[in-house]
Amino acid sequence: MLLIDALQFSKPSRERFEEWRAGNLSAVHVTTAIWENSTETMREIGRWHRLFEEHSDIISPARTVADIEDAAASGRTAVILGFQNSTPFESDLDLVGAFREAGVRIAQLTYNTQNSAGAGCWEDDNAGLSRTYGKNLIKEMNDVGMMVDVSHCNERTILETFEASEKPVAITHANPIDVVGMDVELPFRNKSTQVLKEMAVQGGVIGLSMYPRIAPKGEDCTIDDFIDMIKWTVDLVGIEHVAFGSDFYMGHADEEILWWRQGRWSRSSMVPVSGFVEFPEWFDSSRGYPLMLERMAQAGFAEREVAAIAGGNWSRIFAQNFGS
Amino acid sequence: MLLIDALQFSKPSRERFEEWRAGNLSAVHVTTAIWENSTETMREIGRWHRLFEEHSDIISPARTVADIEDAAASGRTAVILGFQNSTPFESDLDLVGAFREAGVRIAQLTYNTQNSAGAGCWEDDNAGLSRTYGKNLIKEMNDVGMMVDVSHCNERTILETFEASEKPVAITHANPIDVVGMDVELPFRNKSTQVLKEMAVQGGVIGLSMYPRIAPKGEDCTIDDFIDMIKWTVDLVGIEHVAFGSDFYMGHADEEILWWRQGRWSRSSMVPVSGFVEFPEWFDSSRGYPLMLERMAQAGFAEREVAAIAGGNWSRIFAQNFGS
Repeated sequence: MLLIDALQFSKPSRERFEEWRAGNLSAVHVTTAIWENSTETMREIGRWHRLFEEHSDIISPARTVADIEDAAASGRTAVILGFQNSTPFESDLDLVGAFREAGVRIAQLTYNTQNSAGAGCWEDDNAGLSRTYGKNLIKEMNDVGMMVDVSHCNERTILETFEASEKPVAITHANPIDVVGMDVELPFRNKSTQVLKEMAVQGGVIGLSMYPRIAPKGEDCTIDDFIDMIKWTVDLVGIEHVAFGSDFYMGHADEEILWWRQGRWSRSSMVPVSGFVEFPEWFDSSRGYPLMLERMAQAGFAEREVAAIAGGNWSRIFAQNFGS
Repeated sequence: MLLIDALQFSKPSRERFEEWRAGNLSAVHVTTAIWENSTETMREIGRWHRLFEEHSDIISPARTVADIEDAAASGRTAVILGFQNSTPFESDLDLVGAFREAGVRIAQLTYNTQNSAGAGCWEDDNAGLSRTYGKNLIKEMNDVGMMVDVSHCNERTILETFEASEKPVAITHANPIDVVGMDVELPFRNKSTQVLKEMAVQGGVIGLSMYPRIAPKGEDCTIDDFIDMIKWTVDLVGIEHVAFGSDFYMGHADEEILWWRQGRWSRSSMVPVSGFVEFPEWFDSSRGYPLMLERMAQAGFAEREVAAIAGGNWSRIFAQNFGS
């Protein structure tokens, strides 16, 4: 059985990689760009390739699903390089293929704000996928084999992306609004029931997240609350469309978190800024996954259902997008 | 009397500069960026500064309105450096002030497509000024002293920009839809009566254009047709809000024009591509201006009215935006 976390954004370190192994993770999708341009992102990718060399006993790069299976078989965790924004492409279609060659397999269209491709969840909902570059970008990603992620996009951009993409679209890290409610901070990051239903029709998968700011009951979310959310989502969209995307992040300095919030496009943050938000004690790191899977089985999920949610669903749409 | 053309995009050459002198132009706003990023644009600005040295007998850089007056008094044409897109800023507010220091005085928010600031006229009209970077960018331009241009923006972006900007906003080169009609190519580039009225209330100015693709009757536009359009626009918004922005371009290779149409964001053009479109014989270059002013006087414009349209209106809002 594969176990895949479709979004972590911790500062890379041996300690985090060892937690991946302790959690028995087959693969983790990591972020190499938030607001970075092409050159800045290439530097970050270069750093990851250095880490793959230095920690080759426990991590390895994932370019295909076979790479993930090989890593799992050899007791390592495969790392899928991805973007949380399309800024590295600099509105240049040729850079999509170039970054795929450099190892990138997943890219989110926007991170919170509007850009040349689409609009993020901090914008008014009027803007969507641009009919110029946005549509061309999705076609290019489909063609070269890079998965489209819409986790931070606004509703309109997400729905228009489902329509434009010929390959399954991912929501790598978010939760259902109708479970979490609108009374926590940043509720707009979560996804409507309409989005979730259309995602499933389109063939996509959502990675449910333990990040307290978007989880049910916030910092008071128990493992049972989380499993109830899994059940609710499975009932809504089917077992084949639900998975994990923890959004776990650790080890960043405050200035790094400020960078995520405002890039260079603002001189102040539109949302409350704090340092690291503590994750619940049952998921204080990737080590929390084995307990999660055990409790899911106790809660009535069949073995094949646990396997689908743990990694089978991600590996299916990874294969459809970037090759088995 | 000052005579100002608020948009020309010819390939820079001694021949064009001599036409400026023959046309008695006090100042011309030229384009240094269409899709270029920061570094590419700095190179283009560097080329212009080399041209200022090489042709210092007939052209000079304009950083203030006084520079324009000095150029006119010494028989030279002042050159205002500007952008037709905000791509050189790379969504970095600090680059706005940096480019002002480098001599740039006017920047259009978008060139035809959607970007992180707003949306262009080739997009659906749902997208507008982004409430994140778009609003911050306008504030920054207001603060550092760079004029906002919305010539290629879509209706929603234009109206929201009028609301956001504390300084007068320019439509440097466009014509009224209600004069030209919607039956010529690229009609969406022209401006609605609502936009023109709100522009005037906001304090802005429109530069009317002889570019056949957006002019009344297209390639058959006569000088009288053009002067009728001036009259119509003056009747609508008042003498203080109408001026010239020819959109004259000459000397570019086909590949350069293809670059304007599709940048790197598309592999084909969304609009018909042709080489240079011939301007009408009465405006086959900047040499056409003296006849235009003469015929305006014959058509009943008072001397102070001709002066306002020729250059007074631009110099007023230049002073309000980037300093007298």
